[in-house]
Amino acid sequence: MKSTIWRKALSICFLLLGFWIISSCKSESKPESEQEDRPPNFIVIFADDLGYGDLSCYGNPTILTPNLDRMAHEGQKWTNFYVGASVCTPSRAALLTGRLPIRNGMTSNKNRVLFPDSKNGLPAEEITLAEQLKKAGYTTAAIGKWHLGHREQYLPTNNGFDYYYGIPYSNDMDWVVENPKGGYWNLQNDDLKTEHFNVPLLRGTEIIERPADQNTITKRYSAETISFIKQNKDKPFFVYLAHNLPHIPLFASEEAKGKSERGLYGDVVQEIDHGVGQILETLKSEGLVENTIVVFTSDNGPWLPFKNSGGSAGLLKAGKGSTWEGGMREPGIFWGPGYIKPGLVTDIGSAMDLFATFSAMAGIDIPQDRVMDSYDLGPTLIERKPSPRNHIMYYRGTELYAARLGDYKAHFITQGVYGQFGEREEHDPPVLYHLNHDPSERFNVAKGNEEIIGQIQELVKVHKSNLIPGKDQLAEREQKVD
Amino acid sequence: MKSTIWRKALSICFLLLGFWIISSCKSESKPESEQEDRPPNFIVIFADDLGYGDLSCYGNPTILTPNLDRMAHEGQKWTNFYVGASVCTPSRAALLTGRLPIRNGMTSNKNRVLFPDSKNGLPAEEITLAEQLKKAGYTTAAIGKWHLGHREQYLPTNNGFDYYYGIPYSNDMDWVVENPKGGYWNLQNDDLKTEHFNVPLLRGTEIIERPADQNTITKRYSAETISFIKQNKDKPFFVYLAHNLPHIPLFASEEAKGKSERGLYGDVVQEIDHGVGQILETLKSEGLVENTIVVFTSDNGPWLPFKNSGGSAGLLKAGKGSTWEGGMREPGIFWGPGYIKPGLVTDIGSAMDLFATFSAMAGIDIPQDRVMDSYDLGPTLIERKPSPRNHIMYYRGTELYAARLGDYKAHFITQGVYGQFGEREEHDPPVLYHLNHDPSERFNVAKGNEEIIGQIQELVKVHKSNLIPGKDQLAEREQKVD
Repeated sequence: MKSTIWRKALSICFLLLGFWIISSCKSESKPESEQEDRPPNFIVIFADDLGYGDLSCYGNPTILTPNLDRMAHEGQKWTNFYVGASVCTPSRAALLTGRLPIRNGMTSNKNRVLFPDSKNGLPAEEITLAEQLKKAGYTTAAIGKWHLGHREQYLPTNNGFDYYYGIPYSNDMDWVVENPKGGYWNLQNDDLKTEHFNVPLLRGTEIIERPADQNTITKRYSAETISFIKQNKDKPFFVYLAHNLPHIPLFASEEAKGKSERGLYGDVVQEIDHGVGQILETLKSEGLVENTIVVFTSDNGPWLPFKNSGGSAGLLKAGKGSTWEGGMREPGIFWGPGYIKPGLVTDIGSAMDLFATFSAMAGIDIPQDRVMDSYDLGPTLIERKPSPRNHIMYYRGTELYAARLGDYKAHFITQGVYGQFGEREEHDPPVLYHLNHDPSERFNVAKGNEEIIGQIQELVKVHKSNLIPGKDQLAEREQKVD
Repeated sequence: MKSTIWRKALSICFLLLGFWIISSCKSESKPESEQEDRPPNFIVIFADDLGYGDLSCYGNPTILTPNLDRMAHEGQKWTNFYVGASVCTPSRAALLTGRLPIRNGMTSNKNRVLFPDSKNGLPAEEITLAEQLKKAGYTTAAIGKWHLGHREQYLPTNNGFDYYYGIPYSNDMDWVVENPKGGYWNLQNDDLKTEHFNVPLLRGTEIIERPADQNTITKRYSAETISFIKQNKDKPFFVYLAHNLPHIPLFASEEAKGKSERGLYGDVVQEIDHGVGQILETLKSEGLVENTIVVFTSDNGPWLPFKNSGGSAGLLKAGKGSTWEGGMREPGIFWGPGYIKPGLVTDIGSAMDLFATFSAMAGIDIPQDRVMDSYDLGPTLIERKPSPRNHIMYYRGTELYAARLGDYKAHFITQGVYGQFGEREEHDPPVLYHLNHDPSERFNVAKGNEEIIGQIQELVKVHKSNLIPGKDQLAEREQKVD
């Protein structure tokens, strides 16, 4: 027994000695500038139409996302994380400008998103997160879907990105054949080929492939990201990796196809997850783990009419296009062992907050000449202090449908989408839900909570008092569209 | 540079030396009998009315269950794990006997569960998991809700358990006041006190407290479990810890109340989780980590009519009382670092399988004189081999409503519950869902899948051919009940 204690003590000494030597090697092997002076690299991985319930760490039974699950486990998994709009173009504008799309005209009641014949895009006076980070010397890349204007002046390389590789809008655009099964809303993936969509693939502002081969697009986006990281590891970098998928039509590479028990939709999500794993692996092999923050989220909720080709909002109500929670609440995963204090976070956050958060970490001020809708989440991410954000504005087009303040969400207008979840209805007094008690928005608790409704109405009043709607950038198209 | 390499090499040597000494200490510090000859201890933690979506690791946004999440992360998280019935009594009978309740009369079309004036209970000729494990020398304890008969001959201590401490049926029974808000279905937690329910607390077969103080019942169940573990650690043990909560009415201890952002329901689940953490801590402090398997699941889906006092089935359809997935698919977590190979498992499993699984691990044969519905999941748990179970039978009362075979589930009868999810409807041909593609049971794929329907019909035919329904144990009550 005595000898056991001695052996234990000895082993502990050796272990401590070993760890001490290793740690001293580590701090020696990197120049100090890389260690401390340099702000973190940022990688935002943005999925398309992926719902709140589409990752295994958010409760999906058959879509297995071990790499995103690991990010959530080692980092922070946010459960009240929102995007700026329930559809593509405005949501992306919101993330990249830190501003509600109503302010910069990137939302409209005429067209919900930009189309291949749209004339406009993100106004030049808007400051993108890439333009912002360039002030701090970052090298910047947009890889993947853009959807903020495909004419040259609107493309990423004219909006602060040093590098662009991707499809400039949605992967279901530029149809070259009639949908073999009839109208758009009957679109099923079974009979579709990548050749049916004549979408261009750009490098910079040049078309390098048309139609883009969508079978391999997901893995090519991940590969481009990895190659960008390797080439730019010596200076701070920002990568905005916006996958075109799992937006319909769904395509997966030969390696990914048939891998998921969830079917093709699962194959696609798992291929994205596989790329996430490769990116994390690259950060490790390049010695960037301690100095990089990776964020994962999606642009809006699942596109429900497409049956199993669409995803799931989990326990949230409705999906893409709607101001119910399923339209705008998304997985929000923050990973970065050098910065992020692990755990579950139930505080409110928004994709718009990345602007202020990254700016603060990079040591640059956010613009003072315009209204920003961006909060610095740094203290929450780094020290688990309460989130500075206490509210969410839910716009549909240019109309404010709902507002969340703290635990409560008031719907002034409810409206389903794609024939589900009810017709447009205005509510006065508003319908009120306690979202933390009732995430599925089942029980109207307006009665008896007039004070809370009053607080939300006051919040909205203040919000509207400083609101100058931007000129509608989505309305004008080459062809007349009803 | 050269010196760095040398120091690295040196540090690795020391580390290896340290680990080697530690590991040799470890194997010395326990007698061999404890290490190898002894079969594992089993702890089954069984929640009541907790839904598929009620743990953070299964996607709940505001119920935080870090201890269960840790069990899921370090062990196996099953996503196609079922219970034997969608309500209390039959589900518990199924788990403890490894047999469908139709076989032992523990399900009925007259009363869905046992009541305080029910005359019968689990038939004596049934072999419980406790009786089974006693054959291998286990010490056994039932702590918590029983609900398989409250008359003395039906109590746990007459069914293979050496020890019993708990409330013998549901915590909403034995009302002593009228529900202040009207009928049962308007029951809200706000005005309820533990004194309103005159439920007895038993030790062995003696009532030691009446009404049982439900405010402290959850933490007392966990404490009893811990004390049982400490007292019985020298021989193999089996603990069946069946919490009475989060079945309504909800009660939490002073320490737990107000802790969860989900409200009282969340407080209750988090108090159960807290107890799970204490149990895992006890296993660690008592040196039992390597030799114990802990399983967590719930008896059936969430009780939806009770608004926020009920839970969530996440992305699954419906809840308690229904043969939709939300009624019978549950979280299924297996933890045991000495046995369980970690990861997500999408294979089909059932609470009924614990009987054969534990029996195999304890080295005892399962009964040969009766039809068993239990499969040994050991190879899946230990080596991640495919689950031997490929089907699920969904009974409501004594009628087979649906059957799952592999990915597909056929509903022969659908029926909602508590005024939701539709009236009773018979289907010929059956309604068919691909559950792994469509876990929410949204898209009937019967058309074109006649062969699969044929296979399921054949499975049902074989099942029915050897089915001898047991005598109804739930029908007889002291008072005439319509």
